Amino acid sequence: MSVEEEEKSSFNLNPLKIYPVFTTTEEEKIFNFVDYVAEKVIQVNEALDDAVPLKYPHRIHEAMRYSLFAGGKRIRPLLCIAACEAVGGHQSTAMPAACAVEMIHTMSLIQDDLPCMDNDDLRRGKPTNHKVYGEDVAVLAGDGLFILAIEQMATATRGVAPNRVLAAVRELIKAGGAEGLVAGQAEDLRCTGNNQIVKLETLEYIHLHKTAALFEASVVMGAIFGGGTDEQVEKLRIFARKIGLLFQVVDDILDVTRSSEELGKTAGKDLAADKTTYPKLLGLEKAMEFAEKLNGEATEQLTDFDQKKVAPLVALADYIACRDN
Amino acid sequence: MSVEEEEKSSFNLNPLKIYPVFTTTEEEKIFNFVDYVAEKVIQVNEALDDAVPLKYPHRIHEAMRYSLFAGGKRIRPLLCIAACEAVGGHQSTAMPAACAVEMIHTMSLIQDDLPCMDNDDLRRGKPTNHKVYGEDVAVLAGDGLFILAIEQMATATRGVAPNRVLAAVRELIKAGGAEGLVAGQAEDLRCTGNNQIVKLETLEYIHLHKTAALFEASVVMGAIFGGGTDEQVEKLRIFARKIGLLFQVVDDILDVTRSSEELGKTAGKDLAADKTTYPKLLGLEKAMEFAEKLNGEATEQLTDFDQKKVAPLVALADYIACRDN
Repeated sequence: MSVEEEEKSSFNLNPLKIYPVFTTTEEEKIFNFVDYVAEKVIQVNEALDDAVPLKYPHRIHEAMRYSLFAGGKRIRPLLCIAACEAVGGHQSTAMPAACAVEMIHTMSLIQDDLPCMDNDDLRRGKPTNHKVYGEDVAVLAGDGLFILAIEQMATATRGVAPNRVLAAVRELIKAGGAEGLVAGQAEDLRCTGNNQIVKLETLEYIHLHKTAALFEASVVMGAIFGGGTDEQVEKLRIFARKIGLLFQVVDDILDVTRSSEELGKTAGKDLAADKTTYPKLLGLEKAMEFAEKLNGEATEQLTDFDQKKVAPLVALADYIACRDN
Repeated sequence: MSVEEEEKSSFNLNPLKIYPVFTTTEEEKIFNFVDYVAEKVIQVNEALDDAVPLKYPHRIHEAMRYSLFAGGKRIRPLLCIAACEAVGGHQSTAMPAACAVEMIHTMSLIQDDLPCMDNDDLRRGKPTNHKVYGEDVAVLAGDGLFILAIEQMATATRGVAPNRVLAAVRELIKAGGAEGLVAGQAEDLRCTGNNQIVKLETLEYIHLHKTAALFEASVVMGAIFGGGTDEQVEKLRIFARKIGLLFQVVDDILDVTRSSEELGKTAGKDLAADKTTYPKLLGLEKAMEFAEKLNGEATEQLTDFDQKKVAPLVALADYIACRDN
């Protein structure tokens, strides 16, 4: 299988699902989602390869690269680039930010899998970072990715005024810190186990911080670097928060409906860990309805944009709603 | 004991040591190091208190504050402020950066103490973060401090052009990431135990990255925010690297010459962990000579500056050379 085919298949688009916007119109010829994704993923991977070279000290960089190139779908970088293009920007301006969000995402996965967190042995069908490199190196690899992400943004972004770069750095920091990922993970840990009753609003808090915040940063940074107006940025911010939450609802659904092989990670682990999820709180059917509602609310935000330019964003939202793994 | 007296005593200045620059001249009346430190430490602590409030999720912020207010000497923030003032700036401009370096330093201590790293139970005479809050929360508290540090810099700095803020952010990132702290810690872990023979240059690599890099960022950021010229910034950079290395050499010496009670942390642990140190490689006497040499080379960098303005930097270097804990 060629690299390109591999990238396509790792995205696992379900051919039975309909990606509504462009399958029945003339525009199908102009915008083909599968080709779009395949092309962009290769470009993102090349940029990541440059951004995280294998240098001294080797073991730490090897560990960083191990998880970074372990088969991620690159959804966040794709969203970042798509948002940049949605407001008329060129992807090259957003590429350092696209790499940054993937690095922070990867760091959060390495950390989530640690023995003191979810204690997981398998991620994307491969042994987790600490299983291969040891806990000490895994923690440092996470740190390295985290900080390199911000470095990418702050140093590799070209042709953008410093105040826009700073604004984007602030977005990334908000998403990664104690008001974003860290807050979500802390609440998640607090609410897991001991037969706790977790309210829907707490679950939403967790996912808005643990997942949606980084989606938000991805999209908003793309829009900032693409030269979006304040109004455009704010609409895209809401779009991103909705699809971020959607991503997590679908994740919860997949955890109960798919096998470990299909997912490439341990299935049913939410149930085993006594985690509160959307299917657990709402029931599977209502959780699916909620997912559909979120997708609708998200794409509503895009009605005032140039429809051709937002096509990738709409298709990505649909993919997130309908994905299989 | 008043807060001010406590701050003074926690600094533990050795009255037998001579702080050479100002003890025998008229200027003693103008610049009193002990009063200077006491005053600045209170201001730094107030700024840190504002920068890391106890907010939701409480446990994570409590853990962040626990280590941040566990009795650190605030050497890095003092260096940052002193560097700002050395080039004619006002400390208020450098205060967010001063807080940031202390947060990153604290984060590195939390992480160093983890069971998968040095596995230490005691830090500054108190139980380590993971002993109080658990490993999971300790890891997240470290993340929270790390990212909040950069947030502080990027959002709370006032009256400085965005390109200078970005330049400072880059310095901080370089110090904290895979080319700074992370690289140093990774090499340190690799070189510890198993009766390894570690060369002097490897030891220097470790300390330049694990310790001196953050000293460098502290001083350079202070100088950038103070409006220093490129030439001034580069001289201060060399000064900072020298005293950063000096700090570590003295740390190694204290580890073999002081008790746990005197240090407020486990003494003799380098020996117990079979760590390579300067006294081990050079012998105690030569290590002390090396420390003196570094201090001389550091202060040499300051000869072209206004001597009154660099007095705090010179005194801080002397303190680092002569400290007791």
